[in-house]
Amino acid sequence: MEQNIRLDVNHMMADMLGSEHGITKEQLAAMQEAAAAAQHAVEANRGKGWLGWMELPYNQEEIVSKIEEVAAHVRATYEYFVVLGIGGSALGPIAVHQALNHLHYNELPASKRPGPKFYVEDNIDPERMAALFDVIELPKTCFCIITKSGATAETMSQYLIVTEALKAEVGEGWAKQIIAVTDHEKGNLIKLAKENGFETFFIPDGVGGRFSEMCPVGLVPAACCGIDIRAMLAGAAAMDARCKSDDMMKNPALLEAVLQYIASEQMGRNVQVMLPYADSLKYMADWFCQLWAESLGKNVKRDGTPCHAGQTPAKALGVTDQHSQLQLYNEGPFDKVITFIKVENFRSETKIPKGCEEFKDVAFLGGMTHNTLIEAERQGTEYALYVNKRMNQTIVMPEVNAYTLGQLMFFLEMATAYEGELLNIDAFNQPGVETSKRATYAILGNTDAKYDAARQEMTGRPAFKAEYIL
Amino acid sequence: MEQNIRLDVNHMMADMLGSEHGITKEQLAAMQEAAAAAQHAVEANRGKGWLGWMELPYNQEEIVSKIEEVAAHVRATYEYFVVLGIGGSALGPIAVHQALNHLHYNELPASKRPGPKFYVEDNIDPERMAALFDVIELPKTCFCIITKSGATAETMSQYLIVTEALKAEVGEGWAKQIIAVTDHEKGNLIKLAKENGFETFFIPDGVGGRFSEMCPVGLVPAACCGIDIRAMLAGAAAMDARCKSDDMMKNPALLEAVLQYIASEQMGRNVQVMLPYADSLKYMADWFCQLWAESLGKNVKRDGTPCHAGQTPAKALGVTDQHSQLQLYNEGPFDKVITFIKVENFRSETKIPKGCEEFKDVAFLGGMTHNTLIEAERQGTEYALYVNKRMNQTIVMPEVNAYTLGQLMFFLEMATAYEGELLNIDAFNQPGVETSKRATYAILGNTDAKYDAARQEMTGRPAFKAEYIL
Repeated sequence: MEQNIRLDVNHMMADMLGSEHGITKEQLAAMQEAAAAAQHAVEANRGKGWLGWMELPYNQEEIVSKIEEVAAHVRATYEYFVVLGIGGSALGPIAVHQALNHLHYNELPASKRPGPKFYVEDNIDPERMAALFDVIELPKTCFCIITKSGATAETMSQYLIVTEALKAEVGEGWAKQIIAVTDHEKGNLIKLAKENGFETFFIPDGVGGRFSEMCPVGLVPAACCGIDIRAMLAGAAAMDARCKSDDMMKNPALLEAVLQYIASEQMGRNVQVMLPYADSLKYMADWFCQLWAESLGKNVKRDGTPCHAGQTPAKALGVTDQHSQLQLYNEGPFDKVITFIKVENFRSETKIPKGCEEFKDVAFLGGMTHNTLIEAERQGTEYALYVNKRMNQTIVMPEVNAYTLGQLMFFLEMATAYEGELLNIDAFNQPGVETSKRATYAILGNTDAKYDAARQEMTGRPAFKAEYIL
Repeated sequence: MEQNIRLDVNHMMADMLGSEHGITKEQLAAMQEAAAAAQHAVEANRGKGWLGWMELPYNQEEIVSKIEEVAAHVRATYEYFVVLGIGGSALGPIAVHQALNHLHYNELPASKRPGPKFYVEDNIDPERMAALFDVIELPKTCFCIITKSGATAETMSQYLIVTEALKAEVGEGWAKQIIAVTDHEKGNLIKLAKENGFETFFIPDGVGGRFSEMCPVGLVPAACCGIDIRAMLAGAAAMDARCKSDDMMKNPALLEAVLQYIASEQMGRNVQVMLPYADSLKYMADWFCQLWAESLGKNVKRDGTPCHAGQTPAKALGVTDQHSQLQLYNEGPFDKVITFIKVENFRSETKIPKGCEEFKDVAFLGGMTHNTLIEAERQGTEYALYVNKRMNQTIVMPEVNAYTLGQLMFFLEMATAYEGELLNIDAFNQPGVETSKRATYAILGNTDAKYDAARQEMTGRPAFKAEYIL
């Protein structure tokens, strides 16, 4: 079977949509120089600075072997595997698990699962932590704590809760149940890991949270629930090999970056909807939403010029959201690009039996499969968007497996890096979350002097008015 | 405890954000006449046309009693409860179940669950149907088929699959395991229900899919998983009572509609992010996304004037998405309204133990609760949005329970109805999904002559070009 994913952008183009609503060849041509420069810049900085993630398909042989060894032990030993992490430390693990494991994985008997029951705790909702403790048994649980700095408040508060509970219930030996994924020398977690003797994996320098799925952040959880991480990395490498050209018509990630740049910056499409037609890829849309939003949502260019960049990624699911969002996509403002993900070969076939012969509008379904129906509906939706002159494109996955998933994620990472170049912003920082953090610490009364300013500053906000609270 | 939900719009206003980025009193005043007219129009048409849902809190005494009776039987008899439905027949049941039941409900032992294991099958992914059959036992499963017309292809294909499997495995008596929720006289499903003797509940006239949560569409699944549906309806009635004024400053749903109208139509905020800070409300955001998108995404006004209306609803989750979307919200374009949902009292308390005393940036968390932390982070985020002059508002829920949930859903329904009036569009139809349906049927080769035109029309699309597929 063909194993390369493909990008089909026919429905982005003026050839299909007309020049008012589609992108013309002239617009593409005008971008070729900038596109080539973006490709050169990214390629030239491969492995350097925050582009460390580009080397992950190639430089982890030893680490992968150790992960596989530890994962084999986890799978043989534990009934529950809990990731404590948030943002980039959670979205990748969730997306890959959902894509490659059974859709009701935790409800299967142990004999039908490739690993322990799997949980990712990426929020601090107090009801959620209580709910988790209702369904796991502490002595049979492996906890994987993922935070580069060891200062992430959400994750470290969970660490405090979990380690106290483990010490109380398991006693000596509690530390054997913990895997730490963190920086190799900086921060709190590496110190705690050394002090307590946790099994530890490192987040390499130059790999930020949202680009970390192909390092131990993603690989450890994936391997612990039975996923072929070598195939994922091979998929990433295969996509990387397709991103060597500076000709956008020969480099899918570069073409994607250019099209989204034109769509958002020149044609007012400030929303991009990621619309997989497969339940298995539902959380891949969440992973993409972080990658795209946090990388590109910036208020300053690299030359210091103020800007307000960033297309808003939205997530949806086909066919389900045809019954929820499609009305808006078809008739609402011309403010969106719809990105389908199409799966060519599903891993199951569901036949629709004949029946209801008296009802013509039901009977015609008999003898078909859900496989046929879901793709026909995707094509019907694509056609409707075309009729309504709405930009859309399709990422085609021959099948959902570790190899194609590796390609897909690396493709989106490369497109994000190129898009940062085109926008001339820093795609790898996230200064915009600092105000919120400082304010939170100030509200919590953290006595550290560095929050004095935040506390002071917050008193400057106008008072809330009762008339505006109904 | 105070049981009324509240809407706090302080951070929408120029008083807080300044007049460039906030809404002024003058802008509000200029809308008062239109707002009053919208309120009058909706109130005058209560119960008529597609405003049948407005009467649901009042006219279902007998139906509710029957639902409770059937639900008691289902809870006593079955181990699995499967909803077959899509769009409005699925999003409400999912949202209410997630909000009011345990976050790992299906993983609890039967003795700790108020009802059978609960599944909502709202997609036709072939892997998903296979996955469902892996985890249920057909003889112990009650299927609830929800479709008004009985012609929804997704749901009826599932009906064919499920009924064939039931007949094969259970034989005579299979029909006792099915509950139909459908139109009282029109369509296929009511005929099948009569023919086979299914337990049947009716979707009242004048209640469209996305406004159907308070009728049997939502009430039957809710009651079958142990939810207090009378409290939900009482909550809806309580909100309705607060929507009697035509003064927007005294009617929260009317104020909400006016603010979103100004934000989207006059100030370019074409995206609204629904951002609950509670895992239990995560799927309430999905439910809202259908309500808002499908109701308001329209290309023609009621007077026939072309338009392209509709704010794009996006869904997020706090605090989780602070680590994914907040960077964009704070620094990206001024194109969004952020709608927080804040929960005042969670149903659990999670204490953070002391520890890590050597690390000041972790130790300060010790002795707090996740309850304190999640709200401090919400306030920190609200403050950061304020600093960056981003419109935001907060729906405050004293607690998440059936009564407050009834209020919340009715509030959002009323705001949607008012918004339709302000936009002068039909908020209750969905013509924009027809092209997609017709194309799908044409692609599938449905031989009905009514698809001839669609088949013919589709041949007019330009050919796909190979150069645009990478």
